[in-house]
Amino acid sequence: MKEEILKMDKEELGVTSYIKVWNSRTHFFFETGKRETKGRVRHTSTCIPSSVFFSHIHIHSFPPKPNSMPIPCAHFIASEKAAMEAGLPLPSSSLSQLILTQDDLKKIAAYKAVEYIESGMVLGLGTGSTAKHAVDRIGKLLRQGKLKDIVGIPTSKKTHEQALSLGIPLSDLDSHPVVDLAIDGADEVDPYLNLVKGRGGSLLREKMVEGACKKFVVIVDESKLVNYIGGSGLAMPVEVIQFCWKFTASRLQNLFQESGCVAKLRTLGEKAEPYVTDNGNYIIDLYFKQSIGDLKAASDSILQIAGVVEHGMFIDMATTVIVAGELGLIVKNK
Amino acid sequence: MKEEILKMDKEELGVTSYIKVWNSRTHFFFETGKRETKGRVRHTSTCIPSSVFFSHIHIHSFPPKPNSMPIPCAHFIASEKAAMEAGLPLPSSSLSQLILTQDDLKKIAAYKAVEYIESGMVLGLGTGSTAKHAVDRIGKLLRQGKLKDIVGIPTSKKTHEQALSLGIPLSDLDSHPVVDLAIDGADEVDPYLNLVKGRGGSLLREKMVEGACKKFVVIVDESKLVNYIGGSGLAMPVEVIQFCWKFTASRLQNLFQESGCVAKLRTLGEKAEPYVTDNGNYIIDLYFKQSIGDLKAASDSILQIAGVVEHGMFIDMATTVIVAGELGLIVKNK
Repeated sequence: MKEEILKMDKEELGVTSYIKVWNSRTHFFFETGKRETKGRVRHTSTCIPSSVFFSHIHIHSFPPKPNSMPIPCAHFIASEKAAMEAGLPLPSSSLSQLILTQDDLKKIAAYKAVEYIESGMVLGLGTGSTAKHAVDRIGKLLRQGKLKDIVGIPTSKKTHEQALSLGIPLSDLDSHPVVDLAIDGADEVDPYLNLVKGRGGSLLREKMVEGACKKFVVIVDESKLVNYIGGSGLAMPVEVIQFCWKFTASRLQNLFQESGCVAKLRTLGEKAEPYVTDNGNYIIDLYFKQSIGDLKAASDSILQIAGVVEHGMFIDMATTVIVAGELGLIVKNK
Repeated sequence: MKEEILKMDKEELGVTSYIKVWNSRTHFFFETGKRETKGRVRHTSTCIPSSVFFSHIHIHSFPPKPNSMPIPCAHFIASEKAAMEAGLPLPSSSLSQLILTQDDLKKIAAYKAVEYIESGMVLGLGTGSTAKHAVDRIGKLLRQGKLKDIVGIPTSKKTHEQALSLGIPLSDLDSHPVVDLAIDGADEVDPYLNLVKGRGGSLLREKMVEGACKKFVVIVDESKLVNYIGGSGLAMPVEVIQFCWKFTASRLQNLFQESGCVAKLRTLGEKAEPYVTDNGNYIIDLYFKQSIGDLKAASDSILQIAGVVEHGMFIDMATTVIVAGELGLIVKNK
């Protein structure tokens, strides 16, 4: 696996003006020309501009400013031209308001992934808050004529509707069994680029489409990086048939007893009605206290349980993972 | 695996009268006391009494009659008492009308299996033409008070309805996750007691229930015996989600390309509408020209295909197989 850090400078990019951003763990520093300012990272904030467009990323060994932590620095460079193309507000003099949200990071990763797309491709269109940015971007590039002859294969009914509304030509795996490239988010990414997906509930269709891809580009913000699958403490979802789901949940929990597994039916709303997938099934969310070990063995064990339709571990499927985070944008290739 | 041939004689059984039946490949010979008669086996016949009750089976080396083929002979002994208990017509002097249909053989196997049931058991109730006889018989024994405190776990909506109409108390795996005994038919049985099931479409629920059993008794007529899984040339069914089923069918066919696999969507009626399972899924029937080799490896490969819900191979699940056929009744134990 090769970890690639994008290296470009403003001369290479041909930009006429730029913002540099670097950070310690808790702060972002912005520099435009010779002016500098600083903003606190607030992932949950909604009152800050979430529209800064970073078309290119520059990571180098620029020393941190005095009083910031001595960790590697990330420098984001955004061109006015690129920002204008994206229809986003240009950097203004009020850069003290320029704070990156988690959604900004998702967008940065998504837009980078869309650069992999070429006209004429059959594209797997992911589902979720990160993938949504990529689908929006594809729609925009099609409208602008910068991409042509794209065929999209949506991974959920929701993405199908989004893509339809954007005018992206759509098809399915029956008609297009070979997909050139898929772009999708993930809930967890381990150091070997294995994923957890499906907290949004679309794991099965995503796995079908993304399993049919020549290239599968995963886009995440850095909060999704984990040391091991299940390491976030959040759910690893398993799609099961409705028939005797309690029995199936119990078998799943017993399977990973040694990892302190707890299995819970996914529910919705105040009435806690079971969440129903696009395929009419339920989701059992598995929570692990520690690693489940050999993922392929775990996968087979899960799939061998009658009543299980699919699980959310995407093992050895991602070919590229783009991570947007405080340290900048990192592209990991398999 | 132990192959057990039931050996009992009329003294052990305490019967007062009996029929002996032995056969060549195409003929059955019947003997009552000292009288003998002969009838042709017609598996498709419906005009003959299908109600002969064989409560016990006797296989020995009784020599075949002159002009019959010199193959091992099977002798069926039915007691008047047992026949009366079953509410079936007693052997009459008109034994020339006594011809065994395939359905008779199914019933013989089913009734034998029901002898394994004890009062107080939680029972998996199978689905299909053979299992139906067992469920009918259970209902009758409950009504007669010969079985008590039975809880049935049906493996399909159809069996649920049948059992309800017979007054069998019902539950499910959620309430009764441990099943004492299941009785069900099979479409194929290989020499290692691996099965193909699901030509009736209920493979998933059957596998869930029968996978939760302490004992799983399979009842078949001898036409279901095969040298290898798929050896009958008939379907090995795979339940798949409806979404992009053609794509999934294609992946399944490619998986077993070396075995000359052909994958077909199961359809119903003149309009060839897709057959929909109790779980809202489709069935892809796989036809093999030759053995698919290691069944466990094949199973894992099938289950690893996203879009597959379950397959009809029941590997290492049956604990007993009761085979009713021209050579009599054979009980094979794992």
